[in-house]
Amino acid sequence: MSTIPRLFVKADLTLGAPIALTSEQANYLFRVLRLSKNDAVRVFNGRDGEWRASVTEVMRSAGFLCLEELIVPQAVIGDLQLLFAPLKKTCTDFVVEKATELGVTMIQPVITKRTQTSTVRVSRLEKIVEEAAEQTERLDIPLVQEPIQLLEALGKWDKNRRLVFCDEAGDDPTENWGGDVGRARPMMEAISELKDGLAAILIGPEGGFSPEERKYLRQQDYVIPVTLGPRILRAETAAVSALTLWQAARGDWRAS
Amino acid sequence: MSTIPRLFVKADLTLGAPIALTSEQANYLFRVLRLSKNDAVRVFNGRDGEWRASVTEVMRSAGFLCLEELIVPQAVIGDLQLLFAPLKKTCTDFVVEKATELGVTMIQPVITKRTQTSTVRVSRLEKIVEEAAEQTERLDIPLVQEPIQLLEALGKWDKNRRLVFCDEAGDDPTENWGGDVGRARPMMEAISELKDGLAAILIGPEGGFSPEERKYLRQQDYVIPVTLGPRILRAETAAVSALTLWQAARGDWRAS
Repeated sequence: MSTIPRLFVKADLTLGAPIALTSEQANYLFRVLRLSKNDAVRVFNGRDGEWRASVTEVMRSAGFLCLEELIVPQAVIGDLQLLFAPLKKTCTDFVVEKATELGVTMIQPVITKRTQTSTVRVSRLEKIVEEAAEQTERLDIPLVQEPIQLLEALGKWDKNRRLVFCDEAGDDPTENWGGDVGRARPMMEAISELKDGLAAILIGPEGGFSPEERKYLRQQDYVIPVTLGPRILRAETAAVSALTLWQAARGDWRAS
Repeated sequence: MSTIPRLFVKADLTLGAPIALTSEQANYLFRVLRLSKNDAVRVFNGRDGEWRASVTEVMRSAGFLCLEELIVPQAVIGDLQLLFAPLKKTCTDFVVEKATELGVTMIQPVITKRTQTSTVRVSRLEKIVEEAAEQTERLDIPLVQEPIQLLEALGKWDKNRRLVFCDEAGDDPTENWGGDVGRARPMMEAISELKDGLAAILIGPEGGFSPEERKYLRQQDYVIPVTLGPRILRAETAAVSALTLWQAARGDWRAS
């Protein structure tokens, strides 16, 4: 992998276009990495692919880059969304960072009955998402939405999008998996039979979903209830595991 | 799941045996949870299953429990080990906690050429492992080993144990996956053909393995080189993802 620094910018990217650096970006390139005029940088904006650029002007807390060549054309990433109940601050940050590494296209915080925290600073999460996208070499940026009620999200659901409902508790945790009255099926088994298409993963709060929420979810045609193994996972672990399984079985981790 | 508190203890567990609490455990039960005499507790020691117990004596920073009934017999967990290059402190803590949730039986820090940190406080990691095992409702405790050189670990390797080598960089990151000179195969594809049996996952440092390490690993019969998708994952994400895929395809996340 390239060692040339990689920046997310907001501007449109076209050949020869000058790109203005924010003070943060200038600080990172010129003070932290000690780049100077003519040094190489890579930039992407989530729409126009990844470009090779070079530094054309170094200022105290600003600067310019010039775009030289398109290196990686914009790829269409599989459309996978994450709905999750906000957690304590560091856990939410962690989920958002890992979801970006794991290729989600949209992150929707949802408020459920047992959600502990309903305040989510979207601007802060957008920053985490941008940094993680820079690091992980992806060319697009997941969209972070304002939190909404779970039922509101389901009310306007596109029924062509499967919703993988990580149902840690199940009807009865002492029952074996997979039965009608037992726990949901193991996720890998449940999703390996699906056709490719739009999908979303739903992760509940630490206390799980309420019985009413679970019942409602299980009545929707587009919902696929699944379990993630015999141990109780923390919510942030469940998010990483479920996204991993989707990408491996149905997403872009398969051989190209 | 039960709301009765669940403690890891070191003593052997047999009917009617009095269990002495450490000052930490007593503090947790009597000050944080405000338990008093005759209240119920669950205990496990990693060997003798999970027992229902009750408080028989409350002291200032000590106490006794009495074992009453075996609730869950000791289960044999699939034998899955994790070898990982130590990371920055919080990332190492994270890997160890998540590996416990994901059911590993042994955690071996390994020093590779590009490992940044070689100091690992095993006693600190043991504490994380115990707490995570309490939370995740597992009945055994992963063994945390002192760090050793990667080559030393491989020198004494049990060749019946497959070693899944998460080779993020690959021979040439610009090549497609799966070729002889290209990148390793996607992990799900590579492991779905295996028979069940002993396994370990190997996760390298942030900078990846050296060319010599990679070459040596690929020459061993028991090594299965794999990749984890088209994006660059941080080492701690790779650990969670690889353990998830193993448990889903070959481990105890399959329907029982």
